[in-house]
Amino acid sequence: MRFIDLRSDTVTKPTEAMRKAMYEAEVGDDVYGDDPTVNELERLAAEITGKEAALFVPSGTFGNQLALFTHCQRGNEVLLGEDCHIIAHEVGAASVIAGVQLRPIPTNKGVLDPSDIEKRIRGVDIHFPDTGLICLENAYSNGRVIPLDNMKEIYTIAQKHNIPVHLDGARLFNAATYLNVSPLEITKCCDSVMFALSKALCAPVGSILAGSKNFIEKARKKRKLMGGGLRQAGILAAAGLIALKDMVGNLKNDHLNALCLGEELSKIPGIKVRIDDIHINMVFFSIDTKLEDNTIVNKMMEKGIKINGTENNEWRFVVHYWVSREDVDFIVATLKDILNM
Amino acid sequence: MRFIDLRSDTVTKPTEAMRKAMYEAEVGDDVYGDDPTVNELERLAAEITGKEAALFVPSGTFGNQLALFTHCQRGNEVLLGEDCHIIAHEVGAASVIAGVQLRPIPTNKGVLDPSDIEKRIRGVDIHFPDTGLICLENAYSNGRVIPLDNMKEIYTIAQKHNIPVHLDGARLFNAATYLNVSPLEITKCCDSVMFALSKALCAPVGSILAGSKNFIEKARKKRKLMGGGLRQAGILAAAGLIALKDMVGNLKNDHLNALCLGEELSKIPGIKVRIDDIHINMVFFSIDTKLEDNTIVNKMMEKGIKINGTENNEWRFVVHYWVSREDVDFIVATLKDILNM
Amino acid sequence: MRFIDLRSDTVTKPTEAMRKAMYEAEVGDDVYGDDPTVNELERLAAEITGKEAALFVPSGTFGNQLALFTHCQRGNEVLLGEDCHIIAHEVGAASVIAGVQLRPIPTNKGVLDPSDIEKRIRGVDIHFPDTGLICLENAYSNGRVIPLDNMKEIYTIAQKHNIPVHLDGARLFNAATYLNVSPLEITKCCDSVMFALSKALCAPVGSILAGSKNFIEKARKKRKLMGGGLRQAGILAAAGLIALKDMVGNLKNDHLNALCLGEELSKIPGIKVRIDDIHINMVFFSIDTKLEDNTIVNKMMEKGIKINGTENNEWRFVVHYWVSREDVDFIVATLKDILNM
Amino acid sequence: MRFIDLRSDTVTKPTEAMRKAMYEAEVGDDVYGDDPTVNELERLAAEITGKEAALFVPSGTFGNQLALFTHCQRGNEVLLGEDCHIIAHEVGAASVIAGVQLRPIPTNKGVLDPSDIEKRIRGVDIHFPDTGLICLENAYSNGRVIPLDNMKEIYTIAQKHNIPVHLDGARLFNAATYLNVSPLEITKCCDSVMFALSKALCAPVGSILAGSKNFIEKARKKRKLMGGGLRQAGILAAAGLIALKDMVGNLKNDHLNALCLGEELSKIPGIKVRIDDIHINMVFFSIDTKLEDNTIVNKMMEKGIKINGTENNEWRFVVHYWVSREDVDFIVATLKDILNM
Repeated sequence: MRFIDLRSDTVTKPTEAMRKAMYEAEVGDDVYGDDPTVNELERLAAEITGKEAALFVPSGTFGNQLALFTHCQRGNEVLLGEDCHIIAHEVGAASVIAGVQLRPIPTNKGVLDPSDIEKRIRGVDIHFPDTGLICLENAYSNGRVIPLDNMKEIYTIAQKHNIPVHLDGARLFNAATYLNVSPLEITKCCDSVMFALSKALCAPVGSILAGSKNFIEKARKKRKLMGGGLRQAGILAAAGLIALKDMVGNLKNDHLNALCLGEELSKIPGIKVRIDDIHINMVFFSIDTKLEDNTIVNKMMEKGIKINGTENNEWRFVVHYWVSREDVDFIVATLKDILNM
Repeated sequence: MRFIDLRSDTVTKPTEAMRKAMYEAEVGDDVYGDDPTVNELERLAAEITGKEAALFVPSGTFGNQLALFTHCQRGNEVLLGEDCHIIAHEVGAASVIAGVQLRPIPTNKGVLDPSDIEKRIRGVDIHFPDTGLICLENAYSNGRVIPLDNMKEIYTIAQKHNIPVHLDGARLFNAATYLNVSPLEITKCCDSVMFALSKALCAPVGSILAGSKNFIEKARKKRKLMGGGLRQAGILAAAGLIALKDMVGNLKNDHLNALCLGEELSKIPGIKVRIDDIHINMVFFSIDTKLEDNTIVNKMMEKGIKINGTENNEWRFVVHYWVSREDVDFIVATLKDILNM
Repeated sequence: MRFIDLRSDTVTKPTEAMRKAMYEAEVGDDVYGDDPTVNELERLAAEITGKEAALFVPSGTFGNQLALFTHCQRGNEVLLGEDCHIIAHEVGAASVIAGVQLRPIPTNKGVLDPSDIEKRIRGVDIHFPDTGLICLENAYSNGRVIPLDNMKEIYTIAQKHNIPVHLDGARLFNAATYLNVSPLEITKCCDSVMFALSKALCAPVGSILAGSKNFIEKARKKRKLMGGGLRQAGILAAAGLIALKDMVGNLKNDHLNALCLGEELSKIPGIKVRIDDIHINMVFFSIDTKLEDNTIVNKMMEKGIKINGTENNEWRFVVHYWVSREDVDFIVATLKDILNM
Repeated sequence: MRFIDLRSDTVTKPTEAMRKAMYEAEVGDDVYGDDPTVNELERLAAEITGKEAALFVPSGTFGNQLALFTHCQRGNEVLLGEDCHIIAHEVGAASVIAGVQLRPIPTNKGVLDPSDIEKRIRGVDIHFPDTGLICLENAYSNGRVIPLDNMKEIYTIAQKHNIPVHLDGARLFNAATYLNVSPLEITKCCDSVMFALSKALCAPVGSILAGSKNFIEKARKKRKLMGGGLRQAGILAAAGLIALKDMVGNLKNDHLNALCLGEELSKIPGIKVRIDDIHINMVFFSIDTKLEDNTIVNKMMEKGIKINGTENNEWRFVVHYWVSREDVDFIVATLKDILNM
């Protein structure tokens, strides 16, 4: 049975081109710096983000946590938006690996008020931790894209106070697609950036951390400490190269499908879609129904559609490369049927 | 020259009775559990807080951090009010010693909305840290006292979710004095409590951590790990006993003096006092003046009054045992003169 | 140019069969537990090690550190042989991730005296950390294999004191091959075991951590925290399955080649081989020469042979699947020429 | 009942002169740097150790752990003698607070072979933690004093490699007394030093950490983080000043009493005293007897003598200011009686 999987874009399987590239990949021992495919991927990733250097890491969480660990001294305070991925979905890792104090700041749908950041930057006082880092996230976990001007303003403040900025750009290319700009326009507002090769770009495994040469040199050693020194990683990097070269162009289509899905869902009685929040490939909505979450999840599954239950009373459907326009129609029709039963 | 010191109630020097008690204190090696004065202090502190056991610790920060370290597994998430002492003024220690992720929650003048806490309690998910602890603070860092009903409501939620509650009660007795209740009424809303013997109670050094027998037994060993295993600590405990027995009654007077100071200051043109926030011994106010902070600090110092500069554009004057009603008049007159110059 | 790479068995590239298996691998999102190939690999790995469950991890260091992190409470003490991999070659990670105190014990060529372990197991005392884990390593970093009886004796002591034993079995199958026993005979002397799929078994990336069901369940969440939650990891697992099914049998040949290499090298004047230490695929030797390390490394490289410089004045040549009997002759002849120049 | 307490010199109670000094001490809030007695103690301690600055800390463990935390980056490796206090008796704190990897080195009765240290200093390699610190201890936990030449040789090696040296000098003055040199001769072989004011010097609470101005400035902030920012600490510092000024001269007498105790004990049949190891105030010995430890401990207690049970089958009796020459005779006679029963 073929499934339509809407749980996340992390479920995307590699394309045939990726499988072929992995089959043929020239590899070496990357701990020795000998893997030509990894080296090529890191070179390309640095170029795309406009940074001096880049590093292949096993996952997005790995890349974010490595960034915290590399930028910060232990005990530093890190400013970031409440409900961002680093706080909400990385298992508390920042308190374990980097050993930093997160200082979440309320956001307006993901957008941080620059003055909220500035007033939390610490001065010199024996009671205060040092502010070691500001983390931004774009696209944000709520599916929205942060405006470039907002990022610029925050980066200006950060530079004034000599505080580095890290960007959780797990869905950097989705953000760039929505803003209709080169990723460079986004990454010029940060000192380091993590982006995923998996998720919407379909590579099976891996993310990139990019930054200055000095930063990446330190991160490379800390990656080894964290157990992320892989050997013939060129297998994975080969798929990553396809992701960057061939898959970014498809994101526009994902976004159109998401919008279509959102609009069609909103026509179903009892469903309320956050239509204005559909910037990328995610559709958030609530259902006014007597059915329990599990019932809906199971009935959708019976029809070949995989979905997660609600988080904070909201459903999230994520579309991606393996969800077609026709699938969208089928999803809407199926959900409608279930709610009407 | 005699100084009036308004920087904090931490500046309070021991009383003559305390000095005498320290001079005469019967002592032993407290690491061996042999110090009778420490033992008596810990017994009394447990009684006052209605807990099974108590532990003498070198400072309030030590007691709070020891509580986090003892309640939590590393990597746990801790819910607490934004701007509370643990976040704002403990040097980021929670990320170093306990290794936990703080999750600050916006407050209404220090009061947490119970539903804001409940919705942040984590469920079971591979992306989530466990919620390990809820921290309350009463009196709060902003000088206000949290209503008992609010504490009770939060404690009920915590118990429902099997999450312990720690109370930063550095100024527990000020809070009890304001609420006109026994400290027991406050500490029955928490599993562990830290309160200071220094600050308004005038002991030179030390705080108490109280909780269940099992909790304190674990905390005793972790206190040693943190370097807080003192030897003939009975010297300090002797002053602590005086603090608990003889000094709590004076707090009412401090609070009256604070209110008087606030009211008189508010009569000075250009000064705006947060008069409704004077619950205990702290007066917060702003001054509309062209004088720089430093100028005011220095000119007050010339007259024998020690004050700190502003934090977030606010002045904080703290009264205590060594600030009399006459001192209040002198403070007001002096500041008025300086602003009129 | 074809290179003979003797720097480590980590340099081994995947075989054609592995590439084909990766190309065809059925995959899913392993964070959701959906990857059938990962699931099959974990099932097989559990079976081979006689443990209830197993977990795919990105590297050997990752697996060892995850084991420390899962077995121990922070601040525990871990007993292990001096110069083992966890101490010597994992970048100090145990003090960062698990936050444990390593207590290295001198060994006799890698063999721990059980009484040395037992006397370091801590009793109950307020000054003592708890002994949280004993780590063994087999084969050992020095290329030798630890006798089964020694492991059994240590495991009996550990069980008597209720202390778990973790085995760093990066080269578990080499050890089993040398001892001519099933890996089960080795892994029955431990509660958890890490072994590598890369190294001599040629998979490009990945290791396994195996243990009880409860242990692996906890480890799975901590793997996510450490950034090791991969997505379509079935690609890598497919190669891992080939490693376990088809490559273990080749190790005997590697060991013979290593012995042959050692014997031939020892005939070269000035070279002293630790011939009795050639248990697996590693040859350690010293050279009495006026040539500098770098000169030898470079001249070997010119002839297509990659080697590392000395560590503690010793050379280490590692043979593996991609080093043939003919290569051994060529290596010996080449080094002889260089030393005779 | 008056007790003779031989469990440790930590049990020493303050003298009358100390009690008087504490009673009269001029104090202030030391977190603000306002306590004149603390300031005077820190000035004197810096002078005595020949360091630029010094810091009052609540305990010896606190001082050592603060030194590790201040000298090292997290994840650094620290070289030190096996069985030294930091490893054996500080509850594993180094893995919690500083987050460093201890690398114990076997000693010859506490004396480290300088070449053993040098060969463990790490070079540059992606697998290696940085060597961040060398810790010495003098007098050593086994009661012996380390020769100055050995310390000098190690310090020379450390300086060659740009690695700082910390001295756990809990019993620094005992060591200086034994060596018949100024403490300066010892402390010139280290970058930082911790010594105790309690223990043989009889102050009730407190130790000193001394080092460069920059080091102490950093340590002062980290002391706050660890909860060691005390308020009117001048009370304790007043006793500390007496300890330094008046009590050091008594140590010679303690050492003579220890030697006398050792010699007399060795005359009792079945007792074997490590007589050559009596450098300071500690006597280690074994008893060939059928009596259980507890029996001996209890029977001594009945006669007013407090002792600990054996550690590694050895008894340790520690003499100090409150143990007189007559007490020594009484101890010997009592133990003899008990063994003869």
